[in-house]
Amino acid sequence: MMFKMSAGEFDLVYNSLSFTLASMMASTLFFWLRLSSVHEKYKTAMTVTGLVTFIAAYHYIRIFNSWVDAYEFPAVTEGAADSIAIQDPTLTGKPFNDAYRYMDWLLTVPLLLIEIIFCCNLSPDETTKKAWALGASSGLMIILGYPGEMIIEGAMGVRFMFWAAAMVPFLYVVYTLLVGLKEAIASEGNPKVAAMLTQTCYATVISWCTYPVVYLFPMLGFEGPHAVIAIQLGYCVSDIISKCGVGFLIYNITITKSAALNNSLLGK
Amino acid sequence: MMFKMSAGEFDLVYNSLSFTLASMMASTLFFWLRLSSVHEKYKTAMTVTGLVTFIAAYHYIRIFNSWVDAYEFPAVTEGAADSIAIQDPTLTGKPFNDAYRYMDWLLTVPLLLIEIIFCCNLSPDETTKKAWALGASSGLMIILGYPGEMIIEGAMGVRFMFWAAAMVPFLYVVYTLLVGLKEAIASEGNPKVAAMLTQTCYATVISWCTYPVVYLFPMLGFEGPHAVIAIQLGYCVSDIISKCGVGFLIYNITITKSAALNNSLLGK
Repeated sequence: MMFKMSAGEFDLVYNSLSFTLASMMASTLFFWLRLSSVHEKYKTAMTVTGLVTFIAAYHYIRIFNSWVDAYEFPAVTEGAADSIAIQDPTLTGKPFNDAYRYMDWLLTVPLLLIEIIFCCNLSPDETTKKAWALGASSGLMIILGYPGEMIIEGAMGVRFMFWAAAMVPFLYVVYTLLVGLKEAIASEGNPKVAAMLTQTCYATVISWCTYPVVYLFPMLGFEGPHAVIAIQLGYCVSDIISKCGVGFLIYNITITKSAALNNSLLGK
Repeated sequence: MMFKMSAGEFDLVYNSLSFTLASMMASTLFFWLRLSSVHEKYKTAMTVTGLVTFIAAYHYIRIFNSWVDAYEFPAVTEGAADSIAIQDPTLTGKPFNDAYRYMDWLLTVPLLLIEIIFCCNLSPDETTKKAWALGASSGLMIILGYPGEMIIEGAMGVRFMFWAAAMVPFLYVVYTLLVGLKEAIASEGNPKVAAMLTQTCYATVISWCTYPVVYLFPMLGFEGPHAVIAIQLGYCVSDIISKCGVGFLIYNITITKSAALNNSLLGK
């Protein structure tokens, strides 16, 4: 279902998508340009942090282009006029493809969790185990969510079933972030690093909570052009927090940990 | 509201936007290519300096394309003629989206202030505090300016209210740059560096002063195609000074400070 938008509404989504794209590109470059200043031990974490925003930037280019192609500003009939008022765009018939978001999440969500795990004080075995458990369960969560997301009208019971099924791995991930990593975080020598890791886990969980809520919108009778705008703006904000914001927290953690490692090497 | 332009007027904006885009791209590459010559302590500042011009380059690509799409040169009717006079372009009906500038500023203005803070002689705690205060207040300034900017006709009182509201954080930032940083600048060991930092603060404040003036144009009865041209040219000049110009000042500061740090390490 596609809805007509006013010029202002069209621009609001258009500008939000462009803003998110710019944020993703800038964050990616920042993480990768700062890579050389990070200790060898945390270079993988920083590379993955940049990969998450890089993949998101690619998908935002696609989502932005899809939005632009779905609408068209009417041609001016009085071409020779000295000035014209801006008209509302009309629908072109090309669907706005939002499924790019699922393709994005299927790659970025497991990577996002892995980048957090890579920054924790865990043994190599424990790191591998936790990375696999979180990566696989978050991937499963996205796969289960996708078929339900395709059902926007009718069969709301089926949509709800997929939502409920995806909530099982979702809750497992949330539990691991808030409870399962507590021991590893407590074992950090530097209380500043421990505080930043806790902050990272909370930022991830809080920004994630928007996704299942947005998913429920069509079941709550929330529809039409305003639902489309609310969903796009909501996802943009959540993506910036969970990818750029969490990425910068990870960057701070790796830089702080790298400084500590370098100082201990120098015997300071 | 879109206005018809003569071929010469269309080209003037077109060339200015393209010139600014080239300046932003070239500055970005310069800052990042010189990154390896800067002391570890100032690499973040130089990375951020390049990010500001990178983000601006992205938005100038969008603004340039939006300008090109908004106008169309009429097709030649006497196709077989050996030569034709250049016609004035007509409006296509696609609006020229200037809101990209707000999306740009929302990212680049806080980063620009943070890059200045990163070059000052401040304790890590003071750096974080000042970076947050300036980043948040400048972000607030842009957010408050945006709704007013959308009002170009009628309701000038509302436009003025948003202008006045945005001026509060604006004045706080100007005060911090001109007065709040004086102590940190005075504590610089090298008087050359102190002079450059003062210059950076002044260049930022002076180039910024154009923005609230341009914002007031529609309230001063300044409208039509000449207002559009004046605004675009004004913003291009301000952006080049505040992003490329200030960036090069920051580059000089970090290079001078890096040389001093390397010399002290070598015991010179």
